[in-house]
Amino acid sequence: MHHYPESQIGNAIHKLMAQMFPICRSITGNGVRETLSILQDIIPLTVHEVKSGTPVFDWHVPKEWNVSEAYIKDSLGKRIVDFKNNNLHVVSYSLPVNKQMALEQLKPYLHTLPEHPEWIPYRASYYKETWGFCLTHQQYEQLEDDTYEVVIDAKLEDGSLSYGELFIPGKSSEEILIYTHICHPSLCNDNLSGIALNTYLARQLMQQKNRYSYRFVFAPATIGSITWLSQNRAHLDRIKHGLVITLVGDKGMMTYKKSRSNHSIIDQAAVQALQHCGQSFEVLDFSPYGYDERQFCSPGINLPMGRLTRTPNACYDEYHSSADNLDFVKAASLSHSFNVSLDILNILEGNAVYINKQPCCEPQLGRRGLYEKTSAQRNINNRDLAMLWVLNLCDGEHSLLDIAERSGLDFASIRAAASDLLDADILEETEIQE
Amino acid sequence: MHHYPESQIGNAIHKLMAQMFPICRSITGNGVRETLSILQDIIPLTVHEVKSGTPVFDWHVPKEWNVSEAYIKDSLGKRIVDFKNNNLHVVSYSLPVNKQMALEQLKPYLHTLPEHPEWIPYRASYYKETWGFCLTHQQYEQLEDDTYEVVIDAKLEDGSLSYGELFIPGKSSEEILIYTHICHPSLCNDNLSGIALNTYLARQLMQQKNRYSYRFVFAPATIGSITWLSQNRAHLDRIKHGLVITLVGDKGMMTYKKSRSNHSIIDQAAVQALQHCGQSFEVLDFSPYGYDERQFCSPGINLPMGRLTRTPNACYDEYHSSADNLDFVKAASLSHSFNVSLDILNILEGNAVYINKQPCCEPQLGRRGLYEKTSAQRNINNRDLAMLWVLNLCDGEHSLLDIAERSGLDFASIRAAASDLLDADILEETEIQE
Amino acid sequence: MHHYPESQIGNAIHKLMAQMFPICRSITGNGVRETLSILQDIIPLTVHEVKSGTPVFDWHVPKEWNVSEAYIKDSLGKRIVDFKNNNLHVVSYSLPVNKQMALEQLKPYLHTLPEHPEWIPYRASYYKETWGFCLTHQQYEQLEDDTYEVVIDAKLEDGSLSYGELFIPGKSSEEILIYTHICHPSLCNDNLSGIALNTYLARQLMQQKNRYSYRFVFAPATIGSITWLSQNRAHLDRIKHGLVITLVGDKGMMTYKKSRSNHSIIDQAAVQALQHCGQSFEVLDFSPYGYDERQFCSPGINLPMGRLTRTPNACYDEYHSSADNLDFVKAASLSHSFNVSLDILNILEGNAVYINKQPCCEPQLGRRGLYEKTSAQRNINNRDLAMLWVLNLCDGEHSLLDIAERSGLDFASIRAAASDLLDADILEETEIQE
Repeated sequence: MHHYPESQIGNAIHKLMAQMFPICRSITGNGVRETLSILQDIIPLTVHEVKSGTPVFDWHVPKEWNVSEAYIKDSLGKRIVDFKNNNLHVVSYSLPVNKQMALEQLKPYLHTLPEHPEWIPYRASYYKETWGFCLTHQQYEQLEDDTYEVVIDAKLEDGSLSYGELFIPGKSSEEILIYTHICHPSLCNDNLSGIALNTYLARQLMQQKNRYSYRFVFAPATIGSITWLSQNRAHLDRIKHGLVITLVGDKGMMTYKKSRSNHSIIDQAAVQALQHCGQSFEVLDFSPYGYDERQFCSPGINLPMGRLTRTPNACYDEYHSSADNLDFVKAASLSHSFNVSLDILNILEGNAVYINKQPCCEPQLGRRGLYEKTSAQRNINNRDLAMLWVLNLCDGEHSLLDIAERSGLDFASIRAAASDLLDADILEETEIQE
Repeated sequence: MHHYPESQIGNAIHKLMAQMFPICRSITGNGVRETLSILQDIIPLTVHEVKSGTPVFDWHVPKEWNVSEAYIKDSLGKRIVDFKNNNLHVVSYSLPVNKQMALEQLKPYLHTLPEHPEWIPYRASYYKETWGFCLTHQQYEQLEDDTYEVVIDAKLEDGSLSYGELFIPGKSSEEILIYTHICHPSLCNDNLSGIALNTYLARQLMQQKNRYSYRFVFAPATIGSITWLSQNRAHLDRIKHGLVITLVGDKGMMTYKKSRSNHSIIDQAAVQALQHCGQSFEVLDFSPYGYDERQFCSPGINLPMGRLTRTPNACYDEYHSSADNLDFVKAASLSHSFNVSLDILNILEGNAVYINKQPCCEPQLGRRGLYEKTSAQRNINNRDLAMLWVLNLCDGEHSLLDIAERSGLDFASIRAAASDLLDADILEETEIQE
Repeated sequence: MHHYPESQIGNAIHKLMAQMFPICRSITGNGVRETLSILQDIIPLTVHEVKSGTPVFDWHVPKEWNVSEAYIKDSLGKRIVDFKNNNLHVVSYSLPVNKQMALEQLKPYLHTLPEHPEWIPYRASYYKETWGFCLTHQQYEQLEDDTYEVVIDAKLEDGSLSYGELFIPGKSSEEILIYTHICHPSLCNDNLSGIALNTYLARQLMQQKNRYSYRFVFAPATIGSITWLSQNRAHLDRIKHGLVITLVGDKGMMTYKKSRSNHSIIDQAAVQALQHCGQSFEVLDFSPYGYDERQFCSPGINLPMGRLTRTPNACYDEYHSSADNLDFVKAASLSHSFNVSLDILNILEGNAVYINKQPCCEPQLGRRGLYEKTSAQRNINNRDLAMLWVLNLCDGEHSLLDIAERSGLDFASIRAAASDLLDADILEETEIQE
């Protein structure tokens, strides 16, 4: 499979992240729209707006939140904390405030990370109406007894929830769904990395001929997937495989979390790709805690959808803090994540079920120039061995992924052997006979 | 779940054992009746009598044995060995004897433990008519060449086999069967411990409201379970789960032996209880050798019945000897065994199958006050996680025990989450859909 | 089971190998016929001839090859390399040649083993028409610039492929198939060892009463099994179990390769025999590379056929070289291989499915003299334990092999217990109820 050189794709993803970094995103609002508009420069994303209050399963689409200014000013008129410096300073979805407050009154609304005194925490309060400021613990400790002007010039009002969607038609109407969340403000690994990687992944898929159709969704976490699922409920049977791709830029190893059944084809494909990606990796069984796979894998939806990250949420110190910045994500990691993602999709593209038309004894491969081993060679090479495995297991009960798994050979070898045997008219395509 | 403090329940069990200790029990006879009568002071046990000669499957109820006196007297008139000192001195089920015998004639009828010269062995000969005495090896070695008066004043004649039974009705007519053997004479771990623990377990169950009905059987080993099964054959389909509880007082770790299928619900429940009991434990696959589970798990009966002991039979030195005495069993062990037994039953009581009525995406738990995690917390707590697992796997294919197993969380957390979700009308009870 | 003493059977097999060693075998030709004729002195083998050109599945029976003389003579008239000294000197299936050649012209036709300069390699070219000589690397390095007379007086022409077959009728018409390849020239482990062992195995089976019928096939590798399968396609359903037995004389440990399903009865039997053979062994999952099991386990044939070797092909240095000689194979190894082979077959002979006619509780074994344990014994002996396992699992769902596996007891104990219980009219034979 084609792999982009690290410097090219990793740097491109990083550059796109840098472009989106300053924007103040939340689960709704203009920051999301601005972000999607940047992606539209690269891929022809359709932006959908769903009105506040729309019922989506057990939830309702929330009000739209926009903030223009937010600060804490001391009695000398100095802005001690200012949203303009870092949009993490405001608790996301804060109610508007404009008050004079003594320090002791203000303190309950201030959030810090005492164990990392130079970092600003990221906080949100989507479903409980409140407000607050986040600041470094250093700033906090320098606050003096004073009367502060506390201003959050925000609007929380009826509007809409925005998400982006891109459909890339393939030979088949069967779809692979790729999802990532777009609601976090100036945080890089979580999740500008996923947004940018998926954008370039979509661009790549648009440039190649695909067997499957692909649907990319860029939407806020939780409420975004719930909204999308609610609006697309009638068509979910088109989705044959899916991936949540998110948190893909840190230096940690890749982590694949399996779909709800723990043995979907996407799980096979991801494990196969990772086993041959040349780096360490981790595979986790499904659990109902994490990102949007929580919704896609809920029992009434139950899509075969896995999750690809590097270090999972909350497993690295910088998680949900200002230290998850543009330095924290690496072009090399982004590049590797991109290539693994593409490998997984290419394995799905190449996976098929064939039946051996010459099932009684081995066909005479030598006569067809398909067998390289001669009596001068003690050992069979991988190519010939892959051929024998494909011939042996193409009985209508094994996909090529099944054959790769059982043989221990890599999918690319199994796929190449199958292609050669298909060309020699020894195989024909079929479906799993259950 | 409620745990009795060690000093209270362990001491009560030990005290009851001490009361029964002096009685000479066998598979039939007045010693058994006297024992059951003591239990009737605590629980309203019904005593059944089954006549000698009654056919029970491939067996017949044996004759009743009672012994009033037994001794070996030397020519000086001194009782060298006397049943009055320890009822282990007579081989259980010995035929009556009254003979003058030279030492050499007598020796084949004497049994000792040369490797433990201060202990009296326990011997029985139920199905081969003979007689004998058991003594310490020290006693044996002091025997001089003499003519001995050998007397066993025993009766082996038609009578009946006695067993005790207690039925505790629950909300459902489905039953849990608890069995223990009552045929051993002055031996403590095997099995006054089981008799006394089960008595207090029954009393506890009588004091609480139960979903299941419970049936406790106190009967002799092997022939007792065979007799009970034979007499209750028509009603065995009421029994949904069962436990043989026996040998529960020694200092060794708890040992659960699985039912014949190795994956019954009782097996899940016992393993779950032991995993969270705070002490080491062992789980054994089913094997057809052991105690009365041999009969309950015979292929034509095949009840889902496991066995709970501490150190299993024959795996400790004191087994079947006078060293299995009141000092050998410990109140702390009895208490722990009692609490594990009760935990297992309470898990069965709490196990159920629910269906998530909001299966499409997660329901909005926060709105209902059911989700504690906020954006200030990096990690989810166990209570919230249990909630997510229950929501995800309540699809009609998983019991709460299944969910505890798959999630790795303890049953109590899963049960609590399910109860909260049931109260919130998000779950409803169903049955496994196969 | 009866085991031949090492000196007797191992030496007999080795002696038969020595008798066949000088003959030049190939996939067709008089060497094969001469070999089969030697076997006919021991067992009444039928020799079949299949005409060159006969279509066999995707192949055709090849031309017959016979060589009378082959040498390389230098300009002084000295035979530098001579087929008379060792039949490995000629590449098997070489075209006839009679040429004067300069050393440089000749070199491409010469084959050596530089890493083992004293060994002659074994080479064949069955499906590509060419010719060549094999020689030691020492010989090769001494070749001087000269003009050589190169002669291979061989005939490659229409004739037939020869194979031997022996049918040994048993009580049942269900067959066990034993296959070994006969096409290698003067190589001992590969596969005079298999030819000779199978001959004596057949002789042994002819001397005992068997439940199964046995069919032994001695045929060339690959094309032999393909030809046999093609000619016997209509009757393959008679074959219930099968073994390829080959490469059985080296000092390495026994290696069993499982049948295509990895869990056939032959796989159970072989693992059972090896676990109790008293020596180390290895069990491999099925793979489609190896000897004739490739054909028997092709998807359209799919016979439950395993492969028994010692060190597998290509896993020892001497493989396919003149070092695989009569010293390389050991009487002790041959004897052990013979005994394991016979054990496997005897396990298949003894395997059966019984139903316990007294399935409700244990039958009273003591009354029938079938239970040895008394109350004087702390632990049950293996004989009694085997009895309990057989009684417990003879429910129509377990074969005796299944019971041996689950109990961990050896098959012989399980078989003996079943026989005793059959004699006592407690078991009756049945078939697996699926």
